[in-house]
Amino acid sequence: MGAAGDVTALITAARGGDPRATGRLISIVEDDAVAAVPVLQAIYPASHGAWLTGITGAPGAGKSTLADRLISRWVDEGRRVAVLAVDPTSPFTGGALLGDRIRMQRGAASPGVLVRSMATRGWLGGLARATERVATLCAGLGYDEVLIETVGVGQSEVDVAAAADTTVLVLAAGWGDGVQVAKAGVMEIGDVFVVNKADRADAAAAAAEIREMLQLAATGDGWQPAVVSTVATTGEGVTDLVAALSDHRSALGRSGSSDRATGRRLRDLQRALTDEMEARVLAQLDTPEGKRARAAVAAGDLDPWSAAAELSCR
Amino acid sequence: MGAAGDVTALITAARGGDPRATGRLISIVEDDAVAAVPVLQAIYPASHGAWLTGITGAPGAGKSTLADRLISRWVDEGRRVAVLAVDPTSPFTGGALLGDRIRMQRGAASPGVLVRSMATRGWLGGLARATERVATLCAGLGYDEVLIETVGVGQSEVDVAAAADTTVLVLAAGWGDGVQVAKAGVMEIGDVFVVNKADRADAAAAAAEIREMLQLAATGDGWQPAVVSTVATTGEGVTDLVAALSDHRSALGRSGSSDRATGRRLRDLQRALTDEMEARVLAQLDTPEGKRARAAVAAGDLDPWSAAAELSCR
Repeated sequence: MGAAGDVTALITAARGGDPRATGRLISIVEDDAVAAVPVLQAIYPASHGAWLTGITGAPGAGKSTLADRLISRWVDEGRRVAVLAVDPTSPFTGGALLGDRIRMQRGAASPGVLVRSMATRGWLGGLARATERVATLCAGLGYDEVLIETVGVGQSEVDVAAAADTTVLVLAAGWGDGVQVAKAGVMEIGDVFVVNKADRADAAAAAAEIREMLQLAATGDGWQPAVVSTVATTGEGVTDLVAALSDHRSALGRSGSSDRATGRRLRDLQRALTDEMEARVLAQLDTPEGKRARAAVAAGDLDPWSAAAELSCR
Repeated sequence: MGAAGDVTALITAARGGDPRATGRLISIVEDDAVAAVPVLQAIYPASHGAWLTGITGAPGAGKSTLADRLISRWVDEGRRVAVLAVDPTSPFTGGALLGDRIRMQRGAASPGVLVRSMATRGWLGGLARATERVATLCAGLGYDEVLIETVGVGQSEVDVAAAADTTVLVLAAGWGDGVQVAKAGVMEIGDVFVVNKADRADAAAAAAEIREMLQLAATGDGWQPAVVSTVATTGEGVTDLVAALSDHRSALGRSGSSDRATGRRLRDLQRALTDEMEARVLAQLDTPEGKRARAAVAAGDLDPWSAAAELSCR
């Protein structure tokens, strides 16, 4: 059986519920952008029915606990759920030390829920690209909900959010002053804002401040971002959050028929081109010419830009 | 006068202290990876004397205030200082709403200190690449200290930290529990750890917890990360921080003669190749074939990976 046959067999098994086949496909797609191509081509036509939700916020805001609550709701509704937790690579721990496994206990532990910690790095925004590839795969394997949890407020979180259909931004009451929130530069990526730890004294003020900031924001696609207050540890407000997510979904229309689907396809193209370029550069650096150029640059005998001009494909 | 002459004249003027020439060069290098090449080639031989310090941490940890204290110290020592503040792009504010200008008041306002907010995005980790280009430029223009401030704990912060000679990770006491700190996955990028807001009750426990975590870490280059307690708002502990930075600098040896300099040059090569490829792909997408492929992908008639294979350079 050739490689194409292997891929077809794995996809059939994964769609049939074989967790080992699913795990194997995810590893291929996450680790190797070139080997991912036949897999993604095969599942792509079936990938447009899933909904991608991104959930982000600073460490300690409570988003893992909140994510777990959402997963429970989706499971109760009979939806198939895949959760991708995005961590910067830790060379010595391989990712989170403890992290999600402790905090996600109810929802994520339900039978049939796929939880995967994404720790690939590479360069050129490699983490975000690998995560998006795996999200596309999960969608194509029949998961109805793909939840992407990111830990910070940096470039890759913004990148991942841009790929999601709905982005939830979790802020903890008592987190800091408004200037710092604005500085994080993430206000405009949120479709739904959650003020978590709403049992704290300053929670109402925090929610009011966020609402005020959002009034400064343009609402390009006609959606006015919602602000919801929750206490993730007790479940208070989770019903409001689910309602806000549902409103956003209705407002955008189902993917596959919307502008959002077109945008996602063009983003897939950009990502596919980047993957291909990265593979070419890495191959180029490994040729005899590439090795000579690296040695000359390392020794300070050749500047990097002249070396790049010589090495790049023509 | 041709383009090469323009660049030479601008570099001469910038080295002579002309702020408009400096600003113009930064804009060229930040905005356009292709136009940056002749500038970077011209200043590259002179760029190896500067020290790059990265400072990162979650919003609200107090790193801007701490950065400002460091800048004051460097200015007092007669060092020329450039500060690059990295924000994810905000489409409607163009970056920070208020941010650094409020918080950085003493050091950053000193005459001769260059402060630049980096808001370029693009893709392929574009923000990190643009920041590194500008850092190289500042080094080549004669700045002794280049301080890169990033706001989060995501992929691009890790990328920027990898390019710095010394990375300072600022954690606020009372920030959250150890699990969340570890989850951020940034412990291994720090050369110096700062527990800020050390006047809080739980500060000593936080410092102890960090020291304990660091004992799990491998120390590849023989440096045992330092842990310093500060109160940025009063300046308490800043002398300890300066001493820790100085220790790290001594431990690594001056750049230009160390392995770190070789690593930086190879990183410059990787980045130069990426810049060049990005330019080629963008040009490719704009050809008639590129436009046809984009339309077919958007309509769902062609999968992104087949389109990428057709479009990429051969």
